[in-house]
Amino acid sequence: MEKNKEKTGVAVLGCGTVGGAVVKILTTQQDILKARHKMELQLSYIVDIDFTRAEALHIDKKLFCPDIETVLKDDSVGIVVELIGGTTIAKEYIERSLKAGKKIVTANKALLAHHGNELLALAREQGSCIAFEASCAGGIPIIRALLDGLVVNRIDAIYGIVNGTSNYILSAMTMDSLPYSTALKEAQEAGLAEADPTLDVEGIDSGHKLAILTSLAFGKRIDFKKIPIEGIHTLDICDIEYGRELGYVIKLLAIAQKQEKGICVYVRPAFISMEHPLAWVSGPFNAVSVYGHATGHTMYYGRGAGGDPTASAIIADIYQAATGITSTLFASVNLWPDRAENAVQLSRMDFKSRYYIRLTLDDKPGVLAKIAEKFGKHTISISSVLQQELHPDSDIQEGVPVIITTHPAVEGSVLAALKEVNKLDVTKAESVCIAILDEYIEKI
Amino acid sequence: MEKNKEKTGVAVLGCGTVGGAVVKILTTQQDILKARHKMELQLSYIVDIDFTRAEALHIDKKLFCPDIETVLKDDSVGIVVELIGGTTIAKEYIERSLKAGKKIVTANKALLAHHGNELLALAREQGSCIAFEASCAGGIPIIRALLDGLVVNRIDAIYGIVNGTSNYILSAMTMDSLPYSTALKEAQEAGLAEADPTLDVEGIDSGHKLAILTSLAFGKRIDFKKIPIEGIHTLDICDIEYGRELGYVIKLLAIAQKQEKGICVYVRPAFISMEHPLAWVSGPFNAVSVYGHATGHTMYYGRGAGGDPTASAIIADIYQAATGITSTLFASVNLWPDRAENAVQLSRMDFKSRYYIRLTLDDKPGVLAKIAEKFGKHTISISSVLQQELHPDSDIQEGVPVIITTHPAVEGSVLAALKEVNKLDVTKAESVCIAILDEYIEKI
Repeated sequence: MEKNKEKTGVAVLGCGTVGGAVVKILTTQQDILKARHKMELQLSYIVDIDFTRAEALHIDKKLFCPDIETVLKDDSVGIVVELIGGTTIAKEYIERSLKAGKKIVTANKALLAHHGNELLALAREQGSCIAFEASCAGGIPIIRALLDGLVVNRIDAIYGIVNGTSNYILSAMTMDSLPYSTALKEAQEAGLAEADPTLDVEGIDSGHKLAILTSLAFGKRIDFKKIPIEGIHTLDICDIEYGRELGYVIKLLAIAQKQEKGICVYVRPAFISMEHPLAWVSGPFNAVSVYGHATGHTMYYGRGAGGDPTASAIIADIYQAATGITSTLFASVNLWPDRAENAVQLSRMDFKSRYYIRLTLDDKPGVLAKIAEKFGKHTISISSVLQQELHPDSDIQEGVPVIITTHPAVEGSVLAALKEVNKLDVTKAESVCIAILDEYIEKI
Repeated sequence: MEKNKEKTGVAVLGCGTVGGAVVKILTTQQDILKARHKMELQLSYIVDIDFTRAEALHIDKKLFCPDIETVLKDDSVGIVVELIGGTTIAKEYIERSLKAGKKIVTANKALLAHHGNELLALAREQGSCIAFEASCAGGIPIIRALLDGLVVNRIDAIYGIVNGTSNYILSAMTMDSLPYSTALKEAQEAGLAEADPTLDVEGIDSGHKLAILTSLAFGKRIDFKKIPIEGIHTLDICDIEYGRELGYVIKLLAIAQKQEKGICVYVRPAFISMEHPLAWVSGPFNAVSVYGHATGHTMYYGRGAGGDPTASAIIADIYQAATGITSTLFASVNLWPDRAENAVQLSRMDFKSRYYIRLTLDDKPGVLAKIAEKFGKHTISISSVLQQELHPDSDIQEGVPVIITTHPAVEGSVLAALKEVNKLDVTKAESVCIAILDEYIEKI
């Protein structure tokens, strides 16, 4: 533990849901904190333009501070907690704080996904450090697991459910057979989806988290822009139900997986076997499965968002930064992306996976032979074929749904085959293709 | 990171399954370790009387060392890894190593459950520290979660499946409808149960781990001898099946839960709802659910035993000790039991829970009224009553099985009522009582 730092001054930038929860714990729950940790944390400043949330907590008005200058000049502030969000002011304030000798704690996944390397490099240059447990999966200590508890492991794969909003919506679609629009509305009413849910339901937020987790797990730089991202907003409820009949649950998955030619990194709705523990992660919960060469499969489960869970991670980071543990990890672990080489990120066309394919076909003899011929041509091996009854809510005007599952195939070939299948006159509607994620075979 | 310690000497005491795996990673996987951590770990000695395992790994014979004296005298050895097991020689060697200025890494749950406070106090006295991630749940970084990632949280409950052998046997009983003896034999053949499985199937191993986890989570001293422990060896397959019909799965649960009068700490087979993620932890896997006041429910899942997973935790601890993080946590976190007060551990009679009760009763009118009268007398409220068909494998000679579930009740009252019920002439066989563990209501 660093000496002469029994009391550490903390400035919180941004007092929204998460900032408010941090302020609440630091001010009204000192008894819990003192019972658990020797280090005394002193909330010195709250920097925001809107103090509504802090005022509701009856915070001493002297803590309110409209700008960052005072914080930067005050040597008693050792740690700056950035909870502004976004990639502009947040970035500027972090940079200025690092240059003023402060350690940084942040929950800002977008900023780290886009500018993490740069900020980590600046921190290193300034002899400081950045802790960001709260950036991924809220209260679940997954960053620590990767940098510390699992550090011995060559990580071969990460499977994550890292967006609570999407998982809540998909759970409602799966369990209550609700169409997407109704499930979204329900999530919005429950306060679990924003009025504009784009970042969550289109997979972008999951992509930010995946970029961070993958870089630490694999010890490589990940280019966020190269991550193929698909959301849940175009999913049809009938595919969820047909998949369930085959033993699969649909989840918005954030995946990083070593394959022969590189790392396959993507975010998309995919089927996973009901026997995989991720299949049972429902409602707003998150979970991350990590496959290490020594540990095999470990999984981390909990609330991925919300004020209190995220504040738990942030204050744990404040303690870690204050006691010097963050600096030690920063200096001793080789996985930080600012000093790593670029990962070889496969393009979607090179992914290898199994697939669920829904075709809408004429119900006539010989049709399947035509389809099979196209798959065969692209060396895609079919695992099962199932002609389905029309779903009651189906929009299909003509043809019948036929579900095909494939053996492992290259995605480029599958898409090429489907392009040809879609042009056949026996095909009555655009085909649907959803990846099936197999359990990663542990290497232990 | 402590300076001038770029290369840390490590001595491994005990080269069995886990010791062998540690030696293997330290010697043959230096490329993985170096890619992930700056600190260089140097295996200096292997102390054992049997070097069969080390020899199979083609270890340099110079590392073999028949006694601990050489290790204690060698100042280049900073860390002693105790993997001897048991509570006699292991304890002596740890004490001597601490006195010789070494830091300790151990996987010895029995030793920590019985003598942890003493050893931690000695470590503190000597300015040293003890890391013991591998003592609980193998490769799952659960000790770190409690001391670091979740440190902000007042922990209200822990629910654990922390013995892989028992979980494997119960999974086989549940999924393949095997009786206990057959499932045990299968586990033994798969190398997942010892020839003498007592420690595992009678819950003692789970009790050791629970004592350690509870002391850190609650920041209290736990008296291992006061933990009521029941094993899985007396379970009847019919109860597993009747429970399943009610929506429950049986698990050997290690529980610590705040109740009004103290902490309810126990190990026993209990029913848990199929909707709880622990219900889906099957085969040799372990998982620990932790309920924190800020995070709510988080769960940690993985392989709880085996050479490589346990070695992953041990080497992570070696790094933590070598970089000074263990010392920092030792000094800054208030949860270490050597300095804590005793927990108020409830006796079994004071536990409050719901219960599954199987009675074997005369199939005559008026019988249930007699039973209900006894329950009412002891203020036990019945939630459901279900008369079952006789199970095909049942030994029951006369009477029919009747399953009663209760609302939350005090265990002492339930046992008192059952004692009276057992004496009734309508009762044809000893009653069976199994706790039903409800999802802990998150306090967030």
